[in-house]
Amino acid sequence: MKELAKKSKMAAKAMMKIDHQTRKKVLDELGANLLKRKAEIIEANKIDLKNGQEAGLSGAIIDRLKLDEARIESMVSGVRAISEQHEIVGTFHGEFTNENGLKIKRQRIPLGVILMIFESRPNVVVDCAALAIKSSNAIILKGGKEAKHSNEILHTIIQEAIEKYIPKDAIQVLASDNREVINELLTLNEYIDVVIPRGGEKLVQFVYDNAKMPVIAHFQGLCHMYLDKAADIDKAIKLVLNAKTQRTGVCNAIETLLVHKDLLPKVAKTLTEELQKRGTELRVDKEFMIHSGSELKEATAQDWSTEYLDNILSIKTVNSLDEAIAHIDEFGSFHSECIVSEDENACNQFLNSVDASCVMINASTRFNDGGELGLGAELGISTSKLHAYGPMGAEQMTITRYVVVGDGHIRG
Amino acid sequence: MKELAKKSKMAAKAMMKIDHQTRKKVLDELGANLLKRKAEIIEANKIDLKNGQEAGLSGAIIDRLKLDEARIESMVSGVRAISEQHEIVGTFHGEFTNENGLKIKRQRIPLGVILMIFESRPNVVVDCAALAIKSSNAIILKGGKEAKHSNEILHTIIQEAIEKYIPKDAIQVLASDNREVINELLTLNEYIDVVIPRGGEKLVQFVYDNAKMPVIAHFQGLCHMYLDKAADIDKAIKLVLNAKTQRTGVCNAIETLLVHKDLLPKVAKTLTEELQKRGTELRVDKEFMIHSGSELKEATAQDWSTEYLDNILSIKTVNSLDEAIAHIDEFGSFHSECIVSEDENACNQFLNSVDASCVMINASTRFNDGGELGLGAELGISTSKLHAYGPMGAEQMTITRYVVVGDGHIRG
Repeated sequence: MKELAKKSKMAAKAMMKIDHQTRKKVLDELGANLLKRKAEIIEANKIDLKNGQEAGLSGAIIDRLKLDEARIESMVSGVRAISEQHEIVGTFHGEFTNENGLKIKRQRIPLGVILMIFESRPNVVVDCAALAIKSSNAIILKGGKEAKHSNEILHTIIQEAIEKYIPKDAIQVLASDNREVINELLTLNEYIDVVIPRGGEKLVQFVYDNAKMPVIAHFQGLCHMYLDKAADIDKAIKLVLNAKTQRTGVCNAIETLLVHKDLLPKVAKTLTEELQKRGTELRVDKEFMIHSGSELKEATAQDWSTEYLDNILSIKTVNSLDEAIAHIDEFGSFHSECIVSEDENACNQFLNSVDASCVMINASTRFNDGGELGLGAELGISTSKLHAYGPMGAEQMTITRYVVVGDGHIRG
Repeated sequence: MKELAKKSKMAAKAMMKIDHQTRKKVLDELGANLLKRKAEIIEANKIDLKNGQEAGLSGAIIDRLKLDEARIESMVSGVRAISEQHEIVGTFHGEFTNENGLKIKRQRIPLGVILMIFESRPNVVVDCAALAIKSSNAIILKGGKEAKHSNEILHTIIQEAIEKYIPKDAIQVLASDNREVINELLTLNEYIDVVIPRGGEKLVQFVYDNAKMPVIAHFQGLCHMYLDKAADIDKAIKLVLNAKTQRTGVCNAIETLLVHKDLLPKVAKTLTEELQKRGTELRVDKEFMIHSGSELKEATAQDWSTEYLDNILSIKTVNSLDEAIAHIDEFGSFHSECIVSEDENACNQFLNSVDASCVMINASTRFNDGGELGLGAELGISTSKLHAYGPMGAEQMTITRYVVVGDGHIRG
């Protein structure tokens, strides 16, 4: 691992000297190659899906694992969007000249070597490789064993696309199942500048406890939607359905719905029917159950702190906006939180009180995503309020330094 | 300590609701009170200076500890500059509307509770308190025992100035000498969002090893100045004198001077005389010594990796710009690095190869300072490439989140 990390460091140094046009060429070639070799990717992915099913992985994990034509095309449009973005690395901003003629400016530079530890989704390999190229960083991608074959073919395609222009070691993918590999990588702070664990509580805590380099945690999404008493009913139902069922194995889907008690008579029944039509399992409190007119599973205390990553929704009745905010304060994971309301004051109070990387007003939590928020793709969604909060794109993979240009200027 | 940290967390929540005008009023009152009570501050500081001298503290530490009229006035102008700065917290930027009419914007929010562990300089208390007020964060300041009396009087003045408007717990100062206090604080990640150790290697490493929350290291300044073969001699001498002797107990003073061999005949003698006039102890290699015409102390390998924080300068002859860059690569501490040259290509090569939070071209390293670079004052100078690199002002004490406003928008 030390040799591998050292190679990444050397690749990172070489990456600093690659210009914008070359990086663009690399990204365009990467996109084209992925499309050309779509069939190979789907074949490799089928092996992972088959192994996963045999190993009894949950429906949510199988869904996250899957690569079909549509998902490959969406990966490629991510690469293209990143390629089209304006230049980030090396650019200057905030320039000013002080009263003595000293020029002061800030410049974006890459972080260096990024270690990313993630689970399940193979598209992460392509998104992160493209973002690393754009931001002139080297990246080491440590995926899960369940996506081994998919990650390996993507790794091959990426390295073949880039090696004409940039060191192929700039993008390294580890598909091994060995936990000791992670242990060792986390000690290599001489070569690795930052580690990003993207996954559940256990992984994030393990990395926090063992990493010798700085950590940007991409923790779980225990996201809420609050239906205020002033919610528009049609919008509310549409938003709940989208935020819960449009894709269920993802971190920006909602896990708990909070409903103002005054709204129950107007939404509980329809909502129950519509969610059940979509196969959603409901776990609700007594008040909601009464208004739903159905026999539903009762929620337990455990439900409020569970990220299902599956087609399950817990529903809680609240007496006020304040109670909704307090619930989010206690159980939220700083990811995505949404209020549905036509009352501007309520929306502002929610915005000013809720701590999350993305606060939504009358919009689905599913929009907390690098692609949707204009970053092309994302490394993941940071839930820690340091360096980046929310989706991390190429810009968030850089830092600014100062450049001071004088003509013999001294400090008085 | 847990109670104290909890109070900070509550103060941080209250700070989020304080508006710009109120924060400005608090800062102005703070500045006025410091001036009014100048005599008290100097009296308390005298006790620390006397104790320090009796305890045999070095000249450099005594210098860092000292508060006189000029330094108090400079603290107050820092507070005023911060007060005059444009609003940072709560402001929006990067707003755009997507093709479906969904509004996406970014908003600056405070980090929460910042724990700052620092040594010696009591002015840090005022600078950090003012920056915390400006950025709506709560801060816990753990100073060194040598500045106990100075820190205590400053704490009293600060709390008296702010408590009319904001919770006084927003600014807490710990003057105790107890290492266990730090140990306990570093475990309180439930209440403290980020820790900033500002000091030497031992302190920084200790915090990295023990903190349960994210760390932004403000490590030592082992800064270099490189006199290129194309350096202007007059500028070079002026810059060396300023960067080494204008103030010696500070992290942005240079410790090692790298001189291109072709320049030696033109600068070694004058430089030696001028530095000796200012009491600088020189530790040099043989080549420099020959050209200096004086008997000087010979530098050892140890010198290249020593931050003297004192009026001592090591000098090394290099055969090329590349050799200078390689030396900085090996011994630099990512703080401030300077090239003196009239050759634009050499300056650009230096800029593109040297990794430091501030790179200077023909300007003194002493400019790597929040006040000089336009931030009003600084929390310290971050030497880690995460969240902030270089001086941390109020802006660097915030993070941006996303705010998404729709009208029932769902993801397709």
